[in-house]
Amino acid sequence: MKYRKLLRVNLTTGAINEEDIPPLTVANFIGGRGFGVNYLYNELKPGTDPLGPENKLIFSIGPLAGTGAPSSSRWIVTAKSPLTGTYFRGCGGADFGAWMRFVELDMIIVEGKTESPVYLYIENGHYEIKNGKNLWGKNTVETEQAIKEIHGPKATSACIGPSGERLIRYATIAVDRGHCAGRGGMGTVMASKNLKAIAINPTGGVKAPSKDFKALIARELAEFQRFIRGEPGSPPFSEKGTTGGVDGTNILGVYPVRNFREGSLDEWKKISSDEYLALKVKSVSCYGCPVHCDREVRVKSGPYAGVSTKGLEYETIWAFTGCIGSNDIGFPVAADLLCDELGIDTISAGVSMGFAYELFEKGIITKKDTDGLELVWGNHEAAFELLKKIANRQGLGDILAEGVKRASAYFGRGSEDYAMHIKGLEMPAFDVRGVKWHGLAMATCPCGAFHNMAFSTQELFGNPWPRSVDRFAEEGYADINKINEDWTAVVDTGIWCNFIGEWQVPSLNLLRELLPAVTGVPQFADEKTIFQVGERITNLERAFNVREGFDRKDDIYPKRFTTELLKKAGPSEGSIIGNFGKMLDEYYAIRGWDQNGIPTIEKLESLGLGQIAKDIIKQRK
Amino acid sequence: MKYRKLLRVNLTTGAINEEDIPPLTVANFIGGRGFGVNYLYNELKPGTDPLGPENKLIFSIGPLAGTGAPSSSRWIVTAKSPLTGTYFRGCGGADFGAWMRFVELDMIIVEGKTESPVYLYIENGHYEIKNGKNLWGKNTVETEQAIKEIHGPKATSACIGPSGERLIRYATIAVDRGHCAGRGGMGTVMASKNLKAIAINPTGGVKAPSKDFKALIARELAEFQRFIRGEPGSPPFSEKGTTGGVDGTNILGVYPVRNFREGSLDEWKKISSDEYLALKVKSVSCYGCPVHCDREVRVKSGPYAGVSTKGLEYETIWAFTGCIGSNDIGFPVAADLLCDELGIDTISAGVSMGFAYELFEKGIITKKDTDGLELVWGNHEAAFELLKKIANRQGLGDILAEGVKRASAYFGRGSEDYAMHIKGLEMPAFDVRGVKWHGLAMATCPCGAFHNMAFSTQELFGNPWPRSVDRFAEEGYADINKINEDWTAVVDTGIWCNFIGEWQVPSLNLLRELLPAVTGVPQFADEKTIFQVGERITNLERAFNVREGFDRKDDIYPKRFTTELLKKAGPSEGSIIGNFGKMLDEYYAIRGWDQNGIPTIEKLESLGLGQIAKDIIKQRK
Repeated sequence: MKYRKLLRVNLTTGAINEEDIPPLTVANFIGGRGFGVNYLYNELKPGTDPLGPENKLIFSIGPLAGTGAPSSSRWIVTAKSPLTGTYFRGCGGADFGAWMRFVELDMIIVEGKTESPVYLYIENGHYEIKNGKNLWGKNTVETEQAIKEIHGPKATSACIGPSGERLIRYATIAVDRGHCAGRGGMGTVMASKNLKAIAINPTGGVKAPSKDFKALIARELAEFQRFIRGEPGSPPFSEKGTTGGVDGTNILGVYPVRNFREGSLDEWKKISSDEYLALKVKSVSCYGCPVHCDREVRVKSGPYAGVSTKGLEYETIWAFTGCIGSNDIGFPVAADLLCDELGIDTISAGVSMGFAYELFEKGIITKKDTDGLELVWGNHEAAFELLKKIANRQGLGDILAEGVKRASAYFGRGSEDYAMHIKGLEMPAFDVRGVKWHGLAMATCPCGAFHNMAFSTQELFGNPWPRSVDRFAEEGYADINKINEDWTAVVDTGIWCNFIGEWQVPSLNLLRELLPAVTGVPQFADEKTIFQVGERITNLERAFNVREGFDRKDDIYPKRFTTELLKKAGPSEGSIIGNFGKMLDEYYAIRGWDQNGIPTIEKLESLGLGQIAKDIIKQRK
Repeated sequence: MKYRKLLRVNLTTGAINEEDIPPLTVANFIGGRGFGVNYLYNELKPGTDPLGPENKLIFSIGPLAGTGAPSSSRWIVTAKSPLTGTYFRGCGGADFGAWMRFVELDMIIVEGKTESPVYLYIENGHYEIKNGKNLWGKNTVETEQAIKEIHGPKATSACIGPSGERLIRYATIAVDRGHCAGRGGMGTVMASKNLKAIAINPTGGVKAPSKDFKALIARELAEFQRFIRGEPGSPPFSEKGTTGGVDGTNILGVYPVRNFREGSLDEWKKISSDEYLALKVKSVSCYGCPVHCDREVRVKSGPYAGVSTKGLEYETIWAFTGCIGSNDIGFPVAADLLCDELGIDTISAGVSMGFAYELFEKGIITKKDTDGLELVWGNHEAAFELLKKIANRQGLGDILAEGVKRASAYFGRGSEDYAMHIKGLEMPAFDVRGVKWHGLAMATCPCGAFHNMAFSTQELFGNPWPRSVDRFAEEGYADINKINEDWTAVVDTGIWCNFIGEWQVPSLNLLRELLPAVTGVPQFADEKTIFQVGERITNLERAFNVREGFDRKDDIYPKRFTTELLKKAGPSEGSIIGNFGKMLDEYYAIRGWDQNGIPTIEKLESLGLGQIAKDIIKQRK
């Protein structure tokens, strides 16, 4: 097989170079998320300013992207996060990943910073840093459109919106408007480099796959169909996408309401998946994906009547209902559209607003701060105004644009107790008091409160693989967390979309045939080797954070979860996190990390990360 | 000579033991401050909670204390500070130091914590932890009186006041009411151990000094008389104590007014040293000191008429005039009395109030926060009420009792810009924009913004030794800082009171005779050896802080000094700190520290601190 290729673009010097990705890197990391953390760890100095020119923005895809394999063309973006100061990995969909394959790039590493706005233009073997002044200020839809107007309709692009330009700390990188790398401010890093967009316009032909490979793909697709039709316990993604989560979490009592005080929304059926299904206009799909989990929806009545959006996920619905205690079905649609166009993470925006609502209730902020907005629970009109303030960094919005951790430091007076985040990343739509192992996964996640890097399908969907989990237990399941993490890391190498991978469909047997075929690494016929890649990625991510000074002290919940009983929570009523330290102990032990959450030398060496082990010894005295 | 002795008291276990102080410790550290940092470094684990039982409270005296030598009986108290988290050294006067000598203890190390209030009672060779419940709640004057009632009039004591008991973070340890170890919360550490007082009642005879030693003392006294009569450039301490500072700093334009916005007070002559001299009732002196810098004063008219206090220093006058923009002569007297009785550091209290006044002006706090107090510049009546709130930890006072660093974190909204502190210790009465090398000394001082550990007599009194200093220059005088620091460290070993030592009177020649005689270390006949002790102490203090994570990033000014021009400042008008980084570079280089302010291995080894060098390597990777 031929070498995989990366493009290194230095915006400070203007240098653009192709580099080979060594075969050993493929054998150790497969692609995607593995490539990202490997290069970020090796190329970033500890203490790098996430918004300085020394941070790097790394796009990477997996070996299956653009090959015709289903649900495999997502792209990963890796950088040090301006929200968390940790390693961070975003992930987006649509066609950008496939287009990277078509121009034969497995990675793009963006370094440095230009003095004025630019965009990067890529054809097969042709790379150019182009003047982006005319794009600056445009929203994501306008930007993509403008690029198509300049370079033709086949040109796709990943871009930032106006909120990114204003360095809102949780700006997204958008492809096809709604298919964002949404969390952790990857768009903010891009904006800090004055890079408005990366446009890809494939000019080479797409190679036809071999007959053998085609047969493999056919078998894979058949497996996926089982899932799409609805395996027991798997969510009906093809029909409703992630909106089914609204029903599931409200029934379980883990749908966080009013800034994580309650576990279900008043009259939540007003925003159930059936209600959103009734608004569906058409299905939307990423490149080469038979699941088509995405939908376009249009609001039928009420103050947002006529507004339509696509990519309306469970998390976004929650961000604009649960967070502020509203059950208006239209507001999430309107807010999602705004966030997509301006390039804002909906989760961080929603949680920041819920935080502001609680400060308003407690009197820590007043109408003087809100320019008269009445931030009372349920008031979605005020929320819409506040969201615009965040997007434009106006008044109170300028402070909330920093995220709840920094906003609470700004407002003081005990407001940190209401700042719902882990390591600076705003909490997503799961109350950890009712899904304690999913919670542990977020507390230990290298990116902060990220729900998709070890999603506990066991707790949330009753997935019995590898065994069932008691969601209220505080001991005995850390091994499942390790498996979920390592497995998701493998999935994130670009084998599959998370929504396929997380439910362990298709089978490992298929993977053992697929991976050797696409990577040229025969060792991947061994299941253990595959899982070891996941473990290697997880440990390297942890090592990155350790090098930045993170350890056990940072694997911590907002105070609320350990001091307040969960209310209005049906079967989760009255739950609370009891002995979290014990859960951490169990998890660290299973991981082969020390009591302080630092990977042991033995563990790192067993994963072939000996040099990293030396770094850690150096770092930790 | 016989071994010097320390008393180790463990309040948790009740164990009390005498230990020998090794001769090598005397040769390396002389006594006092040197002993304190040596034991604190060796016995404290990094990361120790300053208010936890693991912190230690170390009292130490120097070799001349109680020997009949003049101005030599001050006592040093060393602990990790609850305000700064650094090494800290307090220093107090009156008779406590001499009494330690009379019971033949060079040091007392207090460890652990009792469950209920106690006091430590000491006679010659007899030590007892006694029930202190009846003393708890008493103010410092009442406490000392009660101890004399129990143990007889010869019993002296060092004690905490009610504000210490309430763990106000800048509580003092008082002897004879006004002779406090005032700064850095040494009283808070004592209170955290439930130790109300240490009472000393000497029951042995005081040995008559040898004839030779008597002759030395006589020569020393003669030298001191030159100073007391007023050497050129030396302040008239015997007449006015430190109150002369009011005139000098207002004339120079470095008397900080309205939370360090201006450099002289409106109508400052209303509070000049002559005005305070007119209030003098009588002179007050520490044990065996011919200088008698202290005075009792009584207010003649106005709202505080009839109130009297002693130990009214320059800093205290400033804390209750300049900080809040008042020029009422009586308020500092009344406030000083309150602070002495309740056991509060006047500087930290005054700066905390000035901070609150500025927040009130800026609207960051309102009458809702102040319980209706109008904190407008010049309002000393409101300040008196606020001071009582601090002392009792009521309302706003409860927050200001944490010091301005923590209070600004509490209030947020940019209030850290108005929090005038270095490393958490509130700034004293010198505007660094007009005395830039004195400022550098405070920025690099191991205890934070402490003015007495390298007092720049060169800038403030025109002292030409070792050479004159341009107070507006930003390069060329870091060597003087080093000399001032190392020299003060030697003085603080208990050779002399700071007020004698800082003005380099008497001569080094006398010291070369005195030190070998009192320590039994012939090497002290060499001036270099003496200065090396100072350098050893300074470096060990720095190493303590490095081990706690402090470095260049912490040697920093409040923003105001580098962004706002000094106003109303006469000859200092319009001054500002320009390139502070360059001053730091120069200082670190002279010190033999690296660019990050870490002592180099070579420097530490040259001072016989090889083991500490190893610790630093361990710590710094």
